[in-house]
Amino acid sequence: MTKVQPKILSGFMELLPEQQIKFNQIKQVIADTYESFGFTPLDTPVLELSEVLLAKAGGETEKQIYQFTKGDTDLSMRFDLTVPLARYVAMHQNDLSFPFKRYQIGKVYRGERPQKGRFREFYQCDIDIIGNETLDISYDAEMPAVIYNIFKKIGISDFTIRFNNRKILKGFFAELNLTDKIVDILRIVDKIAKIGQENVAKSLSDLGISDDAISKIISFITIEGTNDQIINSLKELPVSDETFKTGVSELETVLKGVADLGIPTENYSVDLSIARGLDYYTGTIYETTINAYPEMGSVCSGGRYDDLATFYTDKKLPGVGISIGLTRLFDQFSDRNLISFARKNPADILIIPMDAAQKKTAFEISALLRQANLKCDVFMEDKKFKAKMNYANKTAVPFIGILGEDEVKNNSIVIKNMTTGEQLTVGIKNAPETLLKLKSENTSQAKLIQMK
Amino acid sequence: MTKVQPKILSGFMELLPEQQIKFNQIKQVIADTYESFGFTPLDTPVLELSEVLLAKAGGETEKQIYQFTKGDTDLSMRFDLTVPLARYVAMHQNDLSFPFKRYQIGKVYRGERPQKGRFREFYQCDIDIIGNETLDISYDAEMPAVIYNIFKKIGISDFTIRFNNRKILKGFFAELNLTDKIVDILRIVDKIAKIGQENVAKSLSDLGISDDAISKIISFITIEGTNDQIINSLKELPVSDETFKTGVSELETVLKGVADLGIPTENYSVDLSIARGLDYYTGTIYETTINAYPEMGSVCSGGRYDDLATFYTDKKLPGVGISIGLTRLFDQFSDRNLISFARKNPADILIIPMDAAQKKTAFEISALLRQANLKCDVFMEDKKFKAKMNYANKTAVPFIGILGEDEVKNNSIVIKNMTTGEQLTVGIKNAPETLLKLKSENTSQAKLIQMK
Repeated sequence: MTKVQPKILSGFMELLPEQQIKFNQIKQVIADTYESFGFTPLDTPVLELSEVLLAKAGGETEKQIYQFTKGDTDLSMRFDLTVPLARYVAMHQNDLSFPFKRYQIGKVYRGERPQKGRFREFYQCDIDIIGNETLDISYDAEMPAVIYNIFKKIGISDFTIRFNNRKILKGFFAELNLTDKIVDILRIVDKIAKIGQENVAKSLSDLGISDDAISKIISFITIEGTNDQIINSLKELPVSDETFKTGVSELETVLKGVADLGIPTENYSVDLSIARGLDYYTGTIYETTINAYPEMGSVCSGGRYDDLATFYTDKKLPGVGISIGLTRLFDQFSDRNLISFARKNPADILIIPMDAAQKKTAFEISALLRQANLKCDVFMEDKKFKAKMNYANKTAVPFIGILGEDEVKNNSIVIKNMTTGEQLTVGIKNAPETLLKLKSENTSQAKLIQMK
Repeated sequence: MTKVQPKILSGFMELLPEQQIKFNQIKQVIADTYESFGFTPLDTPVLELSEVLLAKAGGETEKQIYQFTKGDTDLSMRFDLTVPLARYVAMHQNDLSFPFKRYQIGKVYRGERPQKGRFREFYQCDIDIIGNETLDISYDAEMPAVIYNIFKKIGISDFTIRFNNRKILKGFFAELNLTDKIVDILRIVDKIAKIGQENVAKSLSDLGISDDAISKIISFITIEGTNDQIINSLKELPVSDETFKTGVSELETVLKGVADLGIPTENYSVDLSIARGLDYYTGTIYETTINAYPEMGSVCSGGRYDDLATFYTDKKLPGVGISIGLTRLFDQFSDRNLISFARKNPADILIIPMDAAQKKTAFEISALLRQANLKCDVFMEDKKFKAKMNYANKTAVPFIGILGEDEVKNNSIVIKNMTTGEQLTVGIKNAPETLLKLKSENTSQAKLIQMK
């Protein structure tokens, strides 16, 4: 028979088991952390009506969308989790409690030109807090706390959550009478870490901005110091714009909240140069960088917006949210060999009957171990011992349980630690307790991410 | 601004938070149980090349597929998890350890005509064990053990896993010289539970089968008794066909394995009438019915096949697997009000500061509780106490922590059990320990599924 070559589309990530186990562990940390802040899970369809999903989209986004018709229905695959959230909240607003805190972890689709580090199918891990008409600024402090907890738990300590407030930027530029150019200015200012001060100045000049204004802009976005010093510098600036003042006050409140939530000062800082490309952020904005790998760019970003679902409802729904692009992040960690693959197997133990005669006991022991919440694989192929050990080694199971004729006769099993090579013989009834103890002592389970 | 009506496509399930939490809990039980048997997680792309995904498909399946082009690429959304598994194993065969035990829980897409209980996007939860050239029959016994553990854990006790072996059927019909009609016969025989003996006899007669053969077929598929009695009856049948004998021997081995794995005899039985529609099953076949709701049909089915990936590789890959259609199952449970919604909130506690002055302490306590692995929401809106309690009641959080001026002054917090109404005042430092204790005592967390 002619065979079809088994392959996948470029730009789609597919992992081998050991990688998948690690990917899932990181995904689980993210989900658990989101829940630990009271976010409730959501799962919206991957396919939606194009008229609904594309109500707001346009330009580059629309070109990338996987859009098609089936029968006479115009369908699109979701390209983010924010539009489905807006649609969901507008649709179910009478059934939800506000502030509505939801998380969603799911795949989204963008038919970009495939290139290294860009994916056409990728996981987004989003949280948002949506208010009914209003949403207290204190909620903005929870976002950095969530990010901090996630990165710590996956093994990354040396990272910085940077934040700013769009009102400060907006007010500052209003004071300079540059409101009509704000979108262009912010796009340029946002690049200062990448292109440097001089190039920012040049680009601003190209926009027709005066040298005096450029000098004021540069000295504003490069205000430095501790977070308290930055706030003080901002308060001392001769800016009378009310939006500016509100922004400074909001930033101060968020900084206090972040401290109250116990986040160490070395893990967050105000950065007046970040602006975030998206137009719909109106208050606090966040970016997160891993200090040893600045070229990774922001690994977790987000911000505050005035109104989530203007395209679907008249109800005003202000919110704040962040997103982690997990597929890209995992790819970046993999490229830099930061992922520890010590754990390649979901099972705690593999039971190996030496011969067919011990299969019965092997099954019985596996049931006993599972009752004690231990995860247990059983090798049932009639192969040579070497082949059985090969399977154990290749799947990197942390323990094996060997059952020969003698063990069955004596109601016992040999448990071997595959990392240290140590082994001991225990009575079958004691096997669950012994393995639980060995498992808790076992240090072979390394961190998820290991920074050099 | 003109609004777009927020709606979703028919045939797509979308849940409210409390339902989603329950759905996820059931999904988690399934994943945990799969892992407890040593199945490793897999996550393949939702979109694949049509030439790869549709290598085998045809007829009804192909019509239902969401297929489209983007640029000059012909794409399809996956319609099951078996074809992607075949493609994956063929593609990565040199990197995998065999037997390869994988599970995958993911959405699949079928553009069926929408009707009650049919979904166009639905979760399949699959396990398969794939052998390299051979796969020991003992592995077939693990499938019923997995099913048993899942149903028990979600709160269903009164269910029956039925199994049969296609070799027995094949050999039996070969003995009757009816091999050329076997596909049609099995399709009819499979319906006996639905349409009854008489209609089966009539349909067989319509196929041109002799009355003598029909009578033999009916008495064969209605062999009754305990599992041991059925095996004995099969052995006593005057059938000399070797395939038949192999099937009986395999069935006997599987039955023994299921007993060794500790599954109570009331939860499984041999049923010679089940045949499973799919052509590719070649050995053991499984169906699972919930005894109180036979009209639900089989809620977990599967079987043994000779070769997984003939369309992609010459390597012989025998396997055994089962699948749970979770979206449909959840819908069926919901329709019958079997799902207990006691737990509507991921959080263990909601901290409520009475006034803005207590927000700081509220944040501090939330961090303290999270360090003790407690899940904690904080209400930060400046609303009246009644509105705050409304939020607590509507989100059905099990505990609230109230912080007023006095509590902050005394370094304490009032913890209230929202189910019983009981409340107590504890020192802030003792709050995590107290809440952990209260949580473990709290009986408000009901089972996932509550059978009447």
